[in-house]
Amino acid sequence: MKVLALYGSSRAGNSDYLTDTALEGIECTRIYLRDKKILPIDDGRHTEKGFLPVDDDYDYVITEMLKHDVVLFATPIYWYGMSGIMKNFVDRWSQSLRDSRYNFKEDIQGKQGYVLLTGGDQPRLKGLPLIQQFQYIFDFVGMSFNGYIIGEGNKPNDVKNDKTALFEAQQLNLHLKTLVN
Amino acid sequence: MKVLALYGSSRAGNSDYLTDTALEGIECTRIYLRDKKILPIDDGRHTEKGFLPVDDDYDYVITEMLKHDVVLFATPIYWYGMSGIMKNFVDRWSQSLRDSRYNFKEDIQGKQGYVLLTGGDQPRLKGLPLIQQFQYIFDFVGMSFNGYIIGEGNKPNDVKNDKTALFEAQQLNLHLKTLVN
Amino acid sequence: MKVLALYGSSRAGNSDYLTDTALEGIECTRIYLRDKKILPIDDGRHTEKGFLPVDDDYDYVITEMLKHDVVLFATPIYWYGMSGIMKNFVDRWSQSLRDSRYNFKEDIQGKQGYVLLTGGDQPRLKGLPLIQQFQYIFDFVGMSFNGYIIGEGNKPNDVKNDKTALFEAQQLNLHLKTLVN
Amino acid sequence: MKVLALYGSSRAGNSDYLTDTALEGIECTRIYLRDKKILPIDDGRHTEKGFLPVDDDYDYVITEMLKHDVVLFATPIYWYGMSGIMKNFVDRWSQSLRDSRYNFKEDIQGKQGYVLLTGGDQPRLKGLPLIQQFQYIFDFVGMSFNGYIIGEGNKPNDVKNDKTALFEAQQLNLHLKTLVN
Repeated sequence: MKVLALYGSSRAGNSDYLTDTALEGIECTRIYLRDKKILPIDDGRHTEKGFLPVDDDYDYVITEMLKHDVVLFATPIYWYGMSGIMKNFVDRWSQSLRDSRYNFKEDIQGKQGYVLLTGGDQPRLKGLPLIQQFQYIFDFVGMSFNGYIIGEGNKPNDVKNDKTALFEAQQLNLHLKTLVN
Repeated sequence: MKVLALYGSSRAGNSDYLTDTALEGIECTRIYLRDKKILPIDDGRHTEKGFLPVDDDYDYVITEMLKHDVVLFATPIYWYGMSGIMKNFVDRWSQSLRDSRYNFKEDIQGKQGYVLLTGGDQPRLKGLPLIQQFQYIFDFVGMSFNGYIIGEGNKPNDVKNDKTALFEAQQLNLHLKTLVN
Repeated sequence: MKVLALYGSSRAGNSDYLTDTALEGIECTRIYLRDKKILPIDDGRHTEKGFLPVDDDYDYVITEMLKHDVVLFATPIYWYGMSGIMKNFVDRWSQSLRDSRYNFKEDIQGKQGYVLLTGGDQPRLKGLPLIQQFQYIFDFVGMSFNGYIIGEGNKPNDVKNDKTALFEAQQLNLHLKTLVN
Repeated sequence: MKVLALYGSSRAGNSDYLTDTALEGIECTRIYLRDKKILPIDDGRHTEKGFLPVDDDYDYVITEMLKHDVVLFATPIYWYGMSGIMKNFVDRWSQSLRDSRYNFKEDIQGKQGYVLLTGGDQPRLKGLPLIQQFQYIFDFVGMSFNGYIIGEGNKPNDVKNDKTALFEAQQLNLHLKTLVN
């Protein structure tokens, strides 16, 4: 099993920390979306020409993602949703679904998805719609939603005080070790 | 009362149509986010220098928004959330909250928010987490959530067949006319 | 197609009115749960004896329900959920699932479910978790979730002022007429 | 601080076990709703006579609840909601709100609420609407929503294998000890 972490934060903050805790000692691929240029989708589904090629880092990231079996989506809760940079990445899946260079549907289904969120405003309550969205996203593409962790934190390192979130990250770490090794 | 519509779609599709129906004959401002360059937020809340100035169209859009009393957020449901370009716009509010050029908190509170969504995959069920997110967003900044419409549509103009959504858009139109005139 | 309405209110109030609007001129069966005695479930799934027979009106109601093709679940929003009397009815399905007198699983799947809610505290926002619960309920038993209506009302007859809910009830009425006649 | 646990299950199952774990060694009051007779609400808000007295155990339970500072609502997830017997108890609060024998509004506000759920069908996903309902319930009466735990379990004692839920119950236990002692 190959593990990929997609980091959706614009900085090395709490969601990064939580994810790194889950990944400690695990061979995996890490992609920081903040270091990639991924443009918003330009919906060409119903235009004559269809989707046009886009010159950015999306193809690299999605190609990597399709090579892995387990995908961790790590994002701070920005305004009760995933970060805009992660949203732009996911929005582009609509293009990949129709892109003959990929077998997107076949390749993505069956992958194991995990979601790791951190937020400062009652994240375990107000982050729940975002969890439900990931559920719909995973259902749509046939990924399994294997688990999620919601940590509390505002300033960097705050999440170190969230014992429950850290425990869950450690449990996830133990589980991932059984998959990878 | 001054009315602003923020169009979040990447094309002139169903959410645009629904919104235009609600705005027929109403003096208002229309901003198409697809025509604006709005960069993702770079979270500088906890850095020494704080948020850095960004050279894009965000300042123009938020300044316009703060001048209006009623704001319609129109977006297709992309992957069960708002479009990435609208999400990037909202994410940037975190910067405005700390931007001394604005009285963001004071100016935004009390505004009336409406949400107009369209989607193709059971939008009246699977669009609900997005409605809940808007509820949290509006609550956070002190806007009132005055109503929402969810229309069904995939191909452009599909929403013309959604009689309930059209009826609701017409009801909203009647209501907005009482506010504007 | 045979239509059944399950009225979950403890009185003839707004949810009844909305449902009657949807059923005007339609041959159907109406069951008022307030007139039935339905005891809470006593979970016998894991006891030696299993579920014990219960002497109340549940068997009558579920037998009726299984005879119909379209089921309208009408309930006021009590504390953001369905009424306790409707909840007790649904809870008992766990017994029917294991009751050899019924082919519950086979008979219930494929039925068309509609949900009609009314409430006084921002029902179109705060009633959404209840809609999501019905979605899970219908999914579990293989019913299709064909639509829902959320009306606003506190005092009896308030819902008569909710033009959107009434319009939707009329649309549902037109649709049901095509099924029944 | 005085702690009350309201057990909503119809049997001594997983939600009881999880709650007992959280309460180990803590002086508290335990009420098992399955041992109480609590009738469904008969909505008399808008009748001439108003709500009529009901001869059951509700008054005892609500009186106890109002005497405590911290209330644990423990319920199995039945059909994605709280159990019918717990729902009937909560529904009756509408009567207490208008019952001159109580200062319900004054006495309930400020209490600390916790929710402990267990379920067998992806409870950490499909139990989320129920969490949101508790959020609305607590908000309405001015209770604070201090935390929730969702455990997985179908057969009795299953939840003993849910390490995360047990860890959370132990954390809650430590926290409650600081309040009580």
